[in-house]
Amino acid sequence: MNTPIRVVVWNEFRHEQTHPVVKELYPDGMHQAIAKSLSSQEGFSVSTATLDEPEHGLTEARIAETDALIWWAHIAHHEVNDEVVDRVQKAVLGGMGLIVLHSGHFSKIFKRLMGTSCALKWREAGEKERLWNVAPFHPITQGIGDYFELPQTEMYGEPFGIPEPDQTIFLSWFEGGEVFRSGCAWQRGQGKVFYFRPGHETYPIYYNENVLRVIANAVRWAYQPVKIADPSACPNIKTPLEPLKTDK
Amino acid sequence: MNTPIRVVVWNEFRHEQTHPVVKELYPDGMHQAIAKSLSSQEGFSVSTATLDEPEHGLTEARIAETDALIWWAHIAHHEVNDEVVDRVQKAVLGGMGLIVLHSGHFSKIFKRLMGTSCALKWREAGEKERLWNVAPFHPITQGIGDYFELPQTEMYGEPFGIPEPDQTIFLSWFEGGEVFRSGCAWQRGQGKVFYFRPGHETYPIYYNENVLRVIANAVRWAYQPVKIADPSACPNIKTPLEPLKTDK
Amino acid sequence: MNTPIRVVVWNEFRHEQTHPVVKELYPDGMHQAIAKSLSSQEGFSVSTATLDEPEHGLTEARIAETDALIWWAHIAHHEVNDEVVDRVQKAVLGGMGLIVLHSGHFSKIFKRLMGTSCALKWREAGEKERLWNVAPFHPITQGIGDYFELPQTEMYGEPFGIPEPDQTIFLSWFEGGEVFRSGCAWQRGQGKVFYFRPGHETYPIYYNENVLRVIANAVRWAYQPVKIADPSACPNIKTPLEPLKTDK
Amino acid sequence: MNTPIRVVVWNEFRHEQTHPVVKELYPDGMHQAIAKSLSSQEGFSVSTATLDEPEHGLTEARIAETDALIWWAHIAHHEVNDEVVDRVQKAVLGGMGLIVLHSGHFSKIFKRLMGTSCALKWREAGEKERLWNVAPFHPITQGIGDYFELPQTEMYGEPFGIPEPDQTIFLSWFEGGEVFRSGCAWQRGQGKVFYFRPGHETYPIYYNENVLRVIANAVRWAYQPVKIADPSACPNIKTPLEPLKTDK
Repeated sequence: MNTPIRVVVWNEFRHEQTHPVVKELYPDGMHQAIAKSLSSQEGFSVSTATLDEPEHGLTEARIAETDALIWWAHIAHHEVNDEVVDRVQKAVLGGMGLIVLHSGHFSKIFKRLMGTSCALKWREAGEKERLWNVAPFHPITQGIGDYFELPQTEMYGEPFGIPEPDQTIFLSWFEGGEVFRSGCAWQRGQGKVFYFRPGHETYPIYYNENVLRVIANAVRWAYQPVKIADPSACPNIKTPLEPLKTDK
Repeated sequence: MNTPIRVVVWNEFRHEQTHPVVKELYPDGMHQAIAKSLSSQEGFSVSTATLDEPEHGLTEARIAETDALIWWAHIAHHEVNDEVVDRVQKAVLGGMGLIVLHSGHFSKIFKRLMGTSCALKWREAGEKERLWNVAPFHPITQGIGDYFELPQTEMYGEPFGIPEPDQTIFLSWFEGGEVFRSGCAWQRGQGKVFYFRPGHETYPIYYNENVLRVIANAVRWAYQPVKIADPSACPNIKTPLEPLKTDK
Repeated sequence: MNTPIRVVVWNEFRHEQTHPVVKELYPDGMHQAIAKSLSSQEGFSVSTATLDEPEHGLTEARIAETDALIWWAHIAHHEVNDEVVDRVQKAVLGGMGLIVLHSGHFSKIFKRLMGTSCALKWREAGEKERLWNVAPFHPITQGIGDYFELPQTEMYGEPFGIPEPDQTIFLSWFEGGEVFRSGCAWQRGQGKVFYFRPGHETYPIYYNENVLRVIANAVRWAYQPVKIADPSACPNIKTPLEPLKTDK
Repeated sequence: MNTPIRVVVWNEFRHEQTHPVVKELYPDGMHQAIAKSLSSQEGFSVSTATLDEPEHGLTEARIAETDALIWWAHIAHHEVNDEVVDRVQKAVLGGMGLIVLHSGHFSKIFKRLMGTSCALKWREAGEKERLWNVAPFHPITQGIGDYFELPQTEMYGEPFGIPEPDQTIFLSWFEGGEVFRSGCAWQRGQGKVFYFRPGHETYPIYYNENVLRVIANAVRWAYQPVKIADPSACPNIKTPLEPLKTDK
């Protein structure tokens, strides 16, 4: 049997403690709903971490044992310590996968890895969303058909301030008239990054079978067996591979 | 006649003041050599800025009047104020072009916009470099033939820690046996970014006709007439474009 | 004044001669509607060509004098002579721009340049389409705002069988629930290719101001001053640039 | 145990029958050398096919049972039947992997899938080549270090007439002064395509451990479990997913 993929589901975990609707939907937090789903499948070793833990639960030691990190956040992006952001970025560049969910588009770590604004349009009106699978060949869409629907979601609209994705995977249709690149994949250093739009806290998105399947697929896709310890190494290669003829 | 493109050539301007070889090569600084070349051509309005000026010469007002910024730096990346980096990043995402030269690969602003390590291999042995034009259709290579040579350069080797370029433009062959993606282009927000490898301070790179031609081409290519004032705006679109049928 | 861009608007020109609705909408053919719009603007030298002309109006001599070719076709793709397809492909690889409209997605020349199926879903129900501008920085979207609407169109749906575009420019929202990558750009050899979805023959699409503006922008964007006569040349470089040390 | 990946190694198999040096190097043909190496590893079910077999050994039935096709050809590209090219293209768009070797850059199938000239520069002087791994994260480079060398090869030089790769994987340095994108990957429809430069018939390239490792890695990478029977299907979706409000 293969070694399981070590996943950490990270959640800001604030709405669940203060907002009655969210609390009722996710009494243990959205991270637990996602973790439970992953844990029920073979091949994953799942744990969670949240903002209010020391070092946000993402110590050096913890990150060193993580193959894929899932990130949900919304109202407290600014509370995430820059040192932890540095650490996570370094880990991604060294080969850790990162799956950024929904409002995580404005997280420090996603903006850091993209280098762009990551801005978008939005509307909270509980409208219908239909996610079209435009990459049926991609590991992330396996088991997903042509599309899947979410009966009630927050809307995110274009333009989305991201670098052109290496691969656009889902395109969303919204009842209110907008479209959005809802699933986007990038390589960054040795690591893979996937942004996945679904996930508003006041709807039962993380109980949706298709959403959970995409997240599990993304974790498998993002797994990189070969990690690089110091992705910023800039070695001086003093001895040339070929003799230099140039007279200096 | 068209409005000229407003270029600022930014230079760390340290080596020129302390290193005798560099001082002799570029008595007024590399920025002046580049600025002089651009100024001699039609269509540019050129000025310079350096690290030791207040706000590194890149005040809000100055940036607001800049169409393209050229960036050379090496030993003092860490001295660049983070606020100025934020400002330049915002300007690029809003439509200002950025041309990063040589050791600028490790500048804060380039790493910020790439999101990656921007690391590479290097060797200072004054070896020969031949830059192959792999994008003859691109505005940046106009007037450049199949290749051009630099008789003595510092070597930069792969892997180069960058996101896959939107367009790879030059590939370098080095006498000592390495290769490098020496000209790479990316779109970031409304702005264009070009990395161009040549430029070691101890060789007369910025007097080379082909190097200067590429830089001028890159400035013209990076010019974006439509700037966006606030590229991070994330508007709430309260009224849907289509009536919502969903019963909330 | 600059030399005008030489545009040929090519049309299958069959529906207009047999289908009463199309005939009434476009009595002289869709090509004339497009040509008239381009001709009314500065900087273009416009002519037309149609399927039933000798060599489809695309002789060697004609192609040699063309900077950008616009292509509309639907029911007679198979009637296009393969030799003419070869010729157009060669011209594109040598630097002629190609703008493929609507049902031209299944033309021989578009499939040839893409290498893929170019298949899609479709529905003729006269529904509403909203084209979202996801590349506000791109020359093709200049003068277009966040989006524009077509009150009645044929629907095209994903997945669209194309290579991942170099740049996705428009994303369509359809009233009936689908989405589509309606504006896509690729570099192919020295030439630029733009696919633009709008254009069903039974609706007055080519009188729509935004559609016409995008087509004009695309022609300007696709213009490549430097053409390559033989893009398939595969030269034997007998003399190496560097002396070979290897003992053969 | 997993189902083995079904690989067909296809070879023109002409040089080996007429050229004494090639005959001595590869008495059973280059395809057999590659097939033998793959067969010695777990997880592959390997067979071969050659130009002079009926239908070039690539019948409908055969193709239907193939997960990955390896293609070597040089002097007889024009002898490959267009119907077989259509068949192979359809299979690739449906999910069969294709690995194109060396002079296969000018094969009908590669040009068909790329849509471009696939032209390059070349020189036969038995010079040294060093292939740099610029994608250490990619499945194709696993087990390959920073670079590997071939003591004697034919040179291929830029510009290479291909669409910008989805991923550039190897860059070659040549003793004679050129560079080349020697490993390039593209998604085409449901299928993956990899071009790999090494392989000149007069050198023992297909006995080189690194070359063979890259080919085996590429086959594994190209394996797509989900095949699409008719990648050109263009279905009419008569019933919209959403009720149409537009009054037609």
